Amino acid sequence: MINSGYKKMLEGKSVIRQLSEFATARGREIGYENVFDYSLGNPSVPVPEKFTRTMTELLQTRDSMELHGYSPSVGIASVKEKIAASLNERFGMDYTGNHIFPTTGAAGALAHALRCVTEPGDEVLVMAPYFPEYYFYVNMTGARMKVVPADTRKFQIHFGKLEEMLTREVTAVLINTPNNPSGAVYDDNTLRELAALLLRKQEEYGHDIFLISDEPYREIVFDGVKAPYVSRYYDNTLSCYSYSKSLSLPGERIGYVAANPRCRDAELISVICSQISRGIGHNCPPSIFQLAVAEMGGLTGDMSVYETNRNLLYGELTALGFDCVKPGGTFYIFPKAPQEDAVAFCRRALKYDLVLVPSDSFGVPGYFRMAYCIDTEKVERSLEALRRLVKENY
Amino acid sequence: MINSGYKKMLEGKSVIRQLSEFATARGREIGYENVFDYSLGNPSVPVPEKFTRTMTELLQTRDSMELHGYSPSVGIASVKEKIAASLNERFGMDYTGNHIFPTTGAAGALAHALRCVTEPGDEVLVMAPYFPEYYFYVNMTGARMKVVPADTRKFQIHFGKLEEMLTREVTAVLINTPNNPSGAVYDDNTLRELAALLLRKQEEYGHDIFLISDEPYREIVFDGVKAPYVSRYYDNTLSCYSYSKSLSLPGERIGYVAANPRCRDAELISVICSQISRGIGHNCPPSIFQLAVAEMGGLTGDMSVYETNRNLLYGELTALGFDCVKPGGTFYIFPKAPQEDAVAFCRRALKYDLVLVPSDSFGVPGYFRMAYCIDTEKVERSLEALRRLVKENY
Repeated sequence: MINSGYKKMLEGKSVIRQLSEFATARGREIGYENVFDYSLGNPSVPVPEKFTRTMTELLQTRDSMELHGYSPSVGIASVKEKIAASLNERFGMDYTGNHIFPTTGAAGALAHALRCVTEPGDEVLVMAPYFPEYYFYVNMTGARMKVVPADTRKFQIHFGKLEEMLTREVTAVLINTPNNPSGAVYDDNTLRELAALLLRKQEEYGHDIFLISDEPYREIVFDGVKAPYVSRYYDNTLSCYSYSKSLSLPGERIGYVAANPRCRDAELISVICSQISRGIGHNCPPSIFQLAVAEMGGLTGDMSVYETNRNLLYGELTALGFDCVKPGGTFYIFPKAPQEDAVAFCRRALKYDLVLVPSDSFGVPGYFRMAYCIDTEKVERSLEALRRLVKENY
Repeated sequence: MINSGYKKMLEGKSVIRQLSEFATARGREIGYENVFDYSLGNPSVPVPEKFTRTMTELLQTRDSMELHGYSPSVGIASVKEKIAASLNERFGMDYTGNHIFPTTGAAGALAHALRCVTEPGDEVLVMAPYFPEYYFYVNMTGARMKVVPADTRKFQIHFGKLEEMLTREVTAVLINTPNNPSGAVYDDNTLRELAALLLRKQEEYGHDIFLISDEPYREIVFDGVKAPYVSRYYDNTLSCYSYSKSLSLPGERIGYVAANPRCRDAELISVICSQISRGIGHNCPPSIFQLAVAEMGGLTGDMSVYETNRNLLYGELTALGFDCVKPGGTFYIFPKAPQEDAVAFCRRALKYDLVLVPSDSFGVPGYFRMAYCIDTEKVERSLEALRRLVKENY
């Protein structure tokens, strides 16, 4: 018989996927170019030429058995060292290869990091608004996810609520900055305050509290600002990275966990991760992808289109009277819906061929998310639909 | 703090990996070409040229965002259809794409298949001798692995013991044919008897018993024989495949689960697998590997070297008086050690630079495994070391 728990999960099918399927179906009717599909966070920037060239060279020049052979269970040593060196150079860290564990994207990174530092029954705190898949990433480890309500003023952290919920049962706190769905980038003040609180609670409870930092949007920041590097603020940090967004490789599932060299058992983390892999069947990510991304350093695709799109949408939305925090990064914007029921609002928007995602599954009611990783020309055309939606209804 | 369960796993480090590390270290002393390293099952046959060409073409000709974009969570539809068509043609099945779930190799396939059809606390039976990682694959799902003792006469199934252990708590039986480590290929009689027993027990207990068939060595069979296709014998079968061995791609982690179209909830299996992925963080295997292997059909590397090596080793071992079942496939041979303590025997063999793996971790004491996926020239040179090992000690 099919496992009853997984069968039940089918009932809670992802709203985002459903909307994306609607957009595809509508596209078959009126042409996909006429559907303003803001549902999916699939990068719209070409993969850097250097990545394609590196992959091709690996295929053409390396001995095939060596190239495609087993990766050591902790990852390929030279790859780990190159990733560490690139992080050290860009963020002033002092990682060695031993602190890096290559994974199948950020999902793989989180699956390992969470299992590494929690026991079944522990509590893991996440901050609303949060990526809906966190529920599964956390709860299927055996730990229990608790949601800290959002600070909707700027979508930084609601420290009052966080402190209240940071009980003795909490062994990990999971954050995501730059944030999906709000586009907020946690600033220096937020990270300092977070680190101070975690340190204080660690001392009070006499046990570690790990900060798990989900950072796939680290390089997508606007206005010439750099996102602060979370691990610099707090020693017990595991940084979970994916190349999906920065290199436009979401289907290739490649990323890593980087354990702060001063965290508890820092040198053990990647070894423990390799043990976790034995049970969840990843082993390492593909050898060729490990080798290819190691050559990319901090290279990214041309991310400027996301800032252009942010400017267009933020300008129009605020002009139309939407209450909206200006995104500092990512390719998401998260305005307040003009009616309490965001689902009803998003349903109404579909009549204008605007595919928006209601905020309920992100842990905050009454907002909606737009993923503006689409062509700027389409964003421009969508503005008229937005105007009509508002003027004819609100 | 680091999870205590995973930390404990470090104590039980893989014997095979340890021996492989010894071989590498010894290689640095005397030249690796002089170490007769029979420890690791890493293919020694070049990757087919067609695979490299297909990968290169995909990189050169496809739109990069489309090529590296998200795979649907159940896998890429065209890939699933091509895999189904190839299986149907080769094995007389009637799969559709909906029965296929692409995975990160056989480890990923087993991680999904086991979670799919068991509940925590269920029993899963495996047949000795078995691949030691099964312990982790099974137990880390929450189910409990029980080992059915080996039938050492031919390394087919010990049906007396299997029937005894096939209690009401058993919801899945995991087999591996062609078998690592014995090299045995389950024959038509074995599979018929197995199917009949499972059907009888399903009826008696009133619940499904799934057969999980681990088949990475399916195409490595000798003497012109074909391995019977397990799923043809029993409807409730999930076939777990990896391209690691047939295409020499162990580091690239690509395979699939194929659900028999007549198994319980056949169309649901791949959908449930996609739910399981949400919690263990695989999502799908890389898009480019899905697309590339779909073009390979039943293509394999040139496997003839494994048969040549089998003949050389089987001939020499039996001539030296070893009690040894002739492997029908794989690249393993599993002779009886000439002393009761196989670990002591393998330690003695190291003095002759012969790296053999004692059988204890495979669930059968007193045997040893040789992985003969090495150059034939090296196999030939190793025979003299084998002769000296026997003549000087036994």
